[in-house]
Amino acid sequence: MHFGRHISGQFNAELESIRTHVLTMGGLVEQQLSFAMQALHKDDIELAKKVVRDDHKVNAMEVSIDEACTRIIAKRQPTAKDLRLVMAIIKTITDLERIGDVATRIARVAIEQPSTKQQKFHVSLEPLCRQAITMLHQVLDAFARMDVDAVAEVYKLDDKLDAEYEAVVRQLMTYMMEDPKNIPNILQVMWSARAIERVGDRCQNICEYIIYFVKGKDIRHLDEQAINDIL
Amino acid sequence: MHFGRHISGQFNAELESIRTHVLTMGGLVEQQLSFAMQALHKDDIELAKKVVRDDHKVNAMEVSIDEACTRIIAKRQPTAKDLRLVMAIIKTITDLERIGDVATRIARVAIEQPSTKQQKFHVSLEPLCRQAITMLHQVLDAFARMDVDAVAEVYKLDDKLDAEYEAVVRQLMTYMMEDPKNIPNILQVMWSARAIERVGDRCQNICEYIIYFVKGKDIRHLDEQAINDIL
Repeated sequence: MHFGRHISGQFNAELESIRTHVLTMGGLVEQQLSFAMQALHKDDIELAKKVVRDDHKVNAMEVSIDEACTRIIAKRQPTAKDLRLVMAIIKTITDLERIGDVATRIARVAIEQPSTKQQKFHVSLEPLCRQAITMLHQVLDAFARMDVDAVAEVYKLDDKLDAEYEAVVRQLMTYMMEDPKNIPNILQVMWSARAIERVGDRCQNICEYIIYFVKGKDIRHLDEQAINDIL
Repeated sequence: MHFGRHISGQFNAELESIRTHVLTMGGLVEQQLSFAMQALHKDDIELAKKVVRDDHKVNAMEVSIDEACTRIIAKRQPTAKDLRLVMAIIKTITDLERIGDVATRIARVAIEQPSTKQQKFHVSLEPLCRQAITMLHQVLDAFARMDVDAVAEVYKLDDKLDAEYEAVVRQLMTYMMEDPKNIPNILQVMWSARAIERVGDRCQNICEYIIYFVKGKDIRHLDEQAINDIL
């Protein structure tokens, strides 16, 4: 019995450690996104280069957390809620890593289009990016507390992000029509806008994993009504 | 001993069944992509609608294979190569599902821009799409045989896909510059082109899972030299 508790205590500590690593990874990704936005907004090439340089840290965290998850499955043979936590983590880190790639993509635009001439295109990304960072922050918060109510709030934010994205695309399209020779540069910015919009989708994915962990239900691909019934 | 073999035989049959389901899902996704391309190329709205309608089949397969994987982990407590197979499958189906989404996206362009007027924008997607389908076909083939040599071939195809994508983007940009009022429509096609190019990246992800299964090494985020050393 005592031995059993010891094993279980160790196991809990291991799970807790992985969870902490996910939150650290999430914090780093949030910082990367925030730095990338600042770099673009303030035309700060050094900061943009730092974001690109630090992407490998995000990647390394993904690989190491993934390894820790596989190890814990092989060693501890988790079932039920423990297994769901490990599964939720394995998927969450994939999405976090991809959000990290978005930060790098934005940073690259800051590096490749440093001239103040493009500034007006950059500026239009700022509110969108800020919105995505808020969403990521809230979903990480929901993940830390495994809080399904907080998840519902994150879903609402995605509608705002989508609306903001539509506005940005419209604005950028008018720039294109006004001055077709700028199309290649504006397209770069538009790709970034789209990537930022996709951050919202990835945050929603993480919401789904949180619900899967807490409720034991896979809500992917369900319609809004079915999701509301589960929440 | 006999009992042991029975259990193990059952376990093998379960793993084999999951693997077969992944290949069926892959086949369906390949078909979806192929139908979407045909719909776009031949302006066949009915076929495009079928692709959109059938997307739920891909989604359902993702969810059911995922469940089967979690069940097998909980019940059979796989380790070593068995566990790696399950992990590889869990990740592969995520990428397959996203490739399915690309098919839907292309089908939507076919539905929303049915007029023959846009035909010239559509046509430019065909070789790109064909290339992506070839790549998906080969990676599924490599997955079926868990063949690392075949994986190396898939990697090479991605360079061709990227080159093709660059050519398409350039072509579409000239259309934009020629006739700025067409920008919104051309952008739609451009998003699709980008999504198709991302199919190549997803196929590469699947290559990484195959290598992870066969070699037991996680090659994500490694540079080409490091990957070649492992292959």
